[in-house]
Amino acid sequence: MIGIGVIGYGYWGPNLVRNFADIPSVDLRWVCDLQTERLARLRLRYPAVQITEDMNTVLADPKVDAVAIATPVSTHFDLAMQALKAGKSVFVEKPITATSEEAQRLIEEADKRGLVIAVDHTFIHTGAVKKLRELIKGDLGEVYYYDSVRVNLGMFQRDVSVMWDLAVHDLSIMDFVLDARPVAVSAIGMAHVDGSPENIAYLNLHFDCKLMAHVHVNWLAPLKVRRTLVGGSNKMVVYDDLEPSEKIKVYDRGITLDPMAPKAGERINQMRIGYRAGDMFAPQLDIVEALGAELSEFVTCVEQGKGPIADGAAGLRVVRILEAATRSMANGGVVVKLPGERVLA
Amino acid sequence: MIGIGVIGYGYWGPNLVRNFADIPSVDLRWVCDLQTERLARLRLRYPAVQITEDMNTVLADPKVDAVAIATPVSTHFDLAMQALKAGKSVFVEKPITATSEEAQRLIEEADKRGLVIAVDHTFIHTGAVKKLRELIKGDLGEVYYYDSVRVNLGMFQRDVSVMWDLAVHDLSIMDFVLDARPVAVSAIGMAHVDGSPENIAYLNLHFDCKLMAHVHVNWLAPLKVRRTLVGGSNKMVVYDDLEPSEKIKVYDRGITLDPMAPKAGERINQMRIGYRAGDMFAPQLDIVEALGAELSEFVTCVEQGKGPIADGAAGLRVVRILEAATRSMANGGVVVKLPGERVLA
Amino acid sequence: MIGIGVIGYGYWGPNLVRNFADIPSVDLRWVCDLQTERLARLRLRYPAVQITEDMNTVLADPKVDAVAIATPVSTHFDLAMQALKAGKSVFVEKPITATSEEAQRLIEEADKRGLVIAVDHTFIHTGAVKKLRELIKGDLGEVYYYDSVRVNLGMFQRDVSVMWDLAVHDLSIMDFVLDARPVAVSAIGMAHVDGSPENIAYLNLHFDCKLMAHVHVNWLAPLKVRRTLVGGSNKMVVYDDLEPSEKIKVYDRGITLDPMAPKAGERINQMRIGYRAGDMFAPQLDIVEALGAELSEFVTCVEQGKGPIADGAAGLRVVRILEAATRSMANGGVVVKLPGERVLA
Amino acid sequence: MIGIGVIGYGYWGPNLVRNFADIPSVDLRWVCDLQTERLARLRLRYPAVQITEDMNTVLADPKVDAVAIATPVSTHFDLAMQALKAGKSVFVEKPITATSEEAQRLIEEADKRGLVIAVDHTFIHTGAVKKLRELIKGDLGEVYYYDSVRVNLGMFQRDVSVMWDLAVHDLSIMDFVLDARPVAVSAIGMAHVDGSPENIAYLNLHFDCKLMAHVHVNWLAPLKVRRTLVGGSNKMVVYDDLEPSEKIKVYDRGITLDPMAPKAGERINQMRIGYRAGDMFAPQLDIVEALGAELSEFVTCVEQGKGPIADGAAGLRVVRILEAATRSMANGGVVVKLPGERVLA
Repeated sequence: MIGIGVIGYGYWGPNLVRNFADIPSVDLRWVCDLQTERLARLRLRYPAVQITEDMNTVLADPKVDAVAIATPVSTHFDLAMQALKAGKSVFVEKPITATSEEAQRLIEEADKRGLVIAVDHTFIHTGAVKKLRELIKGDLGEVYYYDSVRVNLGMFQRDVSVMWDLAVHDLSIMDFVLDARPVAVSAIGMAHVDGSPENIAYLNLHFDCKLMAHVHVNWLAPLKVRRTLVGGSNKMVVYDDLEPSEKIKVYDRGITLDPMAPKAGERINQMRIGYRAGDMFAPQLDIVEALGAELSEFVTCVEQGKGPIADGAAGLRVVRILEAATRSMANGGVVVKLPGERVLA
Repeated sequence: MIGIGVIGYGYWGPNLVRNFADIPSVDLRWVCDLQTERLARLRLRYPAVQITEDMNTVLADPKVDAVAIATPVSTHFDLAMQALKAGKSVFVEKPITATSEEAQRLIEEADKRGLVIAVDHTFIHTGAVKKLRELIKGDLGEVYYYDSVRVNLGMFQRDVSVMWDLAVHDLSIMDFVLDARPVAVSAIGMAHVDGSPENIAYLNLHFDCKLMAHVHVNWLAPLKVRRTLVGGSNKMVVYDDLEPSEKIKVYDRGITLDPMAPKAGERINQMRIGYRAGDMFAPQLDIVEALGAELSEFVTCVEQGKGPIADGAAGLRVVRILEAATRSMANGGVVVKLPGERVLA
Repeated sequence: MIGIGVIGYGYWGPNLVRNFADIPSVDLRWVCDLQTERLARLRLRYPAVQITEDMNTVLADPKVDAVAIATPVSTHFDLAMQALKAGKSVFVEKPITATSEEAQRLIEEADKRGLVIAVDHTFIHTGAVKKLRELIKGDLGEVYYYDSVRVNLGMFQRDVSVMWDLAVHDLSIMDFVLDARPVAVSAIGMAHVDGSPENIAYLNLHFDCKLMAHVHVNWLAPLKVRRTLVGGSNKMVVYDDLEPSEKIKVYDRGITLDPMAPKAGERINQMRIGYRAGDMFAPQLDIVEALGAELSEFVTCVEQGKGPIADGAAGLRVVRILEAATRSMANGGVVVKLPGERVLA
Repeated sequence: MIGIGVIGYGYWGPNLVRNFADIPSVDLRWVCDLQTERLARLRLRYPAVQITEDMNTVLADPKVDAVAIATPVSTHFDLAMQALKAGKSVFVEKPITATSEEAQRLIEEADKRGLVIAVDHTFIHTGAVKKLRELIKGDLGEVYYYDSVRVNLGMFQRDVSVMWDLAVHDLSIMDFVLDARPVAVSAIGMAHVDGSPENIAYLNLHFDCKLMAHVHVNWLAPLKVRRTLVGGSNKMVVYDDLEPSEKIKVYDRGITLDPMAPKAGERINQMRIGYRAGDMFAPQLDIVEALGAELSEFVTCVEQGKGPIADGAAGLRVVRILEAATRSMANGGVVVKLPGERVLA
């Protein structure tokens, strides 16, 4: 049995508790929150789980192997670092930290101690995103573009912009499904409410290849859109997360290139561009609850000392892009280079 | 009766001919094209119209008051200038010219001679765009953003990028419906076929106010999308041109701001952000054919010596943005300033 | 406080328990089921609620004021009658009973004892159906037709046909929103699996006025449809329960009739039929959970001795139609008369 | 060259003329209509075509091999019979005649004279319906149901009900795609405008097998729907004619039946019903204009003396169903038997 403590029982914490409670190998021991009325609500539903307002109580319990942190982003680093130092593995709500330096330090601490650090990139555990990855590794051919629109009439947040709130999902998905890593970022956005962070943003990821990625996020849209287009040299995909069952549609469409006899005055290597418009198909998808699958994977990693798919390094890569995009947005959209590796080994 | 000659009978010319033929006050005298098989097709359908391969024949006819030019962009300037110099008013396919300097010179020539110059910004004559303008002048409040997606599996063009082919529509619509003029542009794009122009592009328009405008155009998308979101401080609009009848939907949704008693350490002017989610309504729209309305307006302008809605200046403003966007795209997305007026008088 | 016992903890019982648990004036005392593993599941979540496999234990508790029955239809009558005889008010899953005679006897028993009997017609407590009722009482004018399609790939049931499983929803909605009562019924259907009840059915309700009602239900459809069209002399409504927010759309469309001068040989009273195509609007709807609202209403009725909206008589009217439709279906679609009142007072 | 005369230049005639004009082997000689302003319009567009108000002029032209009749239904028989007696093959607008007796007599006359008689069942020449036929002959397995909804805010017609106007399309499609022939019909409908024919109708076709067919047609619906569901024992199809490109969707869904060990008291042959939910795919469809393909086939048949797919017998079968449905509708929905063959050889 893996002993678990959940830190934070606000918006997302109840989902963690519900899913941990359903994993047979988990001993859900503690829930910690600063607000007593939240704990009272927890007590009604899960009377066997202990409650506390002090995280140290959780960390002092030797039967706790790992903690899951679902608190505001600005607190992730301190809480996760305390937990690691107390010898607990950690599962952290996305984005992993507020800065890349913080993420780097958490990774180092976890490595030093041989503990697991995981970030909650929930979407990569959905049937749709797993299928998208399979298609990109397989049928699509060379990936030409990745275009995501993620807009709705949303909850303005006080301390993070719409980019840290919504685009983080797209960045975590791209980190999982694409073979290439972005080398630079540019972004523009605007805050329509004085004193609030940006509520609309457009984000471009630049790559060292023919791939372009673009993300549109918006808290002030009249309708909810969750649609990603991925164009490849062989096929194209529409991933619409709001479709009840056909979330992934694969189109056997694209262009064809034939060598063309040059006319007088034309360059010899000109190509005739044609079109293919073939069948569309929507594969049946896994319908497991993503968060449940993700927490099960985390528990297995803690048991076996393995690294999860969305490990600290994945969390760090996403935060680096968000940081660079924030810098770009503050400077009118200038291109900001990203550090590190370019293409996956 | 206004005598008309149509120059170019390729993709768009037949639409001009069909619509001119239906205007009672028009004497459709000539169609000119370099390809004889096109003229043969015309002859079958409109035996009363004279055909020629030489535009000078058209310009030499004293009964021709105006010509409509539907030829490749690179030829617009030369043909239009010849026509103006021959004393004919001109209606030019969009974009009006390949450079802003050309557009400027056409405007000056027309002014000098008291002739009409019009550009074919067809969409601004649709019921949907006219309604959009009315809403922006009226119920929407301060306009926060204008976001357009115009993608499909499209015909790659040899000499113009997807921006000059598709974004030109959005720019002409914005020129008509918005009260503000952009002060700068940035754009990125990519050519996925070697030797071809960019087939995907993202375009940002910067304004001297809280307005952001963004356009996504793509010739390599698996499905056709023609959707514009316009967010205002009071209401929001979705304009979906592919909807058979409800192209414009007005959402009584948005945020509300209430002054909030400051907590210790907070700035005094912080606001509580709330949400309104009210009715949606889809107004009944005019269903005239836009091109017919546009050509009728042009004919009336020629008869009465008035300026059309989409005059040379409108064509020039759109070309200036396209030029600046092209420059930005060639330089990795740098912000390029636009000349001229900032806000409509 | 109103003491409640829930009988049956299979598919629907957990929803009843969850909603009763959230009503402050409810003392949820017992859950009864024949399967111990279901009760074990309940115990984990709601340790304060007592469990039993014997309904008599529940009925013997003097603090229990009412029971909610969520068991197979064939058992409704026996269980509800026992509860009434024990002096408990009852809330019964739809359809209220397996025969109209049973429903009649329950009503009489409840009346005799001054107890409340309610049937779970959940939909009539949704914001969408309440709005539909308001529109039918108001703007629509004379109602011409009511057409519902309720199909999906569904769970074949052993003992009731798709009509008793799905059409019951439409019948309960019509009972609530229409001013007229049907005078006759005809239905056809088919069982595609030998030994199973009908999995597809078409149901016509006949009225003593210009109204037609038609229901299509199907357990073997490739996609889920929940769409009702209601046509009135002034306006028309589309109620699509699968739409995330715009479930009700009101169309200002219809026909216009103008007296027409008769031509030679035509009847003098011929009318010219024209069309109106005006705005569409989608009113903002209440978003309370219907079942919670319904159970609150039931609890209030028990407290105050009032009758609920969906009382025994409503349940009886729906069962009478289902019985008549079953008879029609067994006889190749013959029209079967309904007893009772024709038009609402 | 096949000489053609078109009789009737109202709503549909111009489509016939346009398509005949594009067939190289056709000599479009005459258009006949009683209204001179229609002929004037024709003359403008097709100056080479002769016009007349007297059909005898057309029939007297020895170079006319066939006539196409696009006049009100009540006139089909007389005009077609005159044409046949003058030795001309005929193509008749749907429905072929106003009564089955008339259709029978036309077939006999054509047979006697060795002439071609064709009925304009346009839909069976679309890529979607041809694909539907292929699927029904192939992957679907045993066909369980055919359900069509064909509604819109439509043009009330003076002399035919919505059934003869709209359901005729569904009947002609079913005649083409299904292997079984209906043995009986029942229908109900209502006329909401006094003195007009029925504007809403529901039609059931009864078969000698497990197949059910149902058609809902309505001229008074707030939105346009053209959707057919076809359920088979192996797969299911949605045919939505309003989809721009994915008109046919094939769902690998259905039920599975496994023998089940009988419990005490149960019949030995009870089956456990399970569900399959697999991929969906939308095949690429032919995008030829159906009417053009149909007229080409007719011309080829006239040239070669062959029978078309939609011959007189197909037209007769459809009219027989419409007649029987009309009788049923006039008698409150009684089941009316159909004459003739039951299952295709």
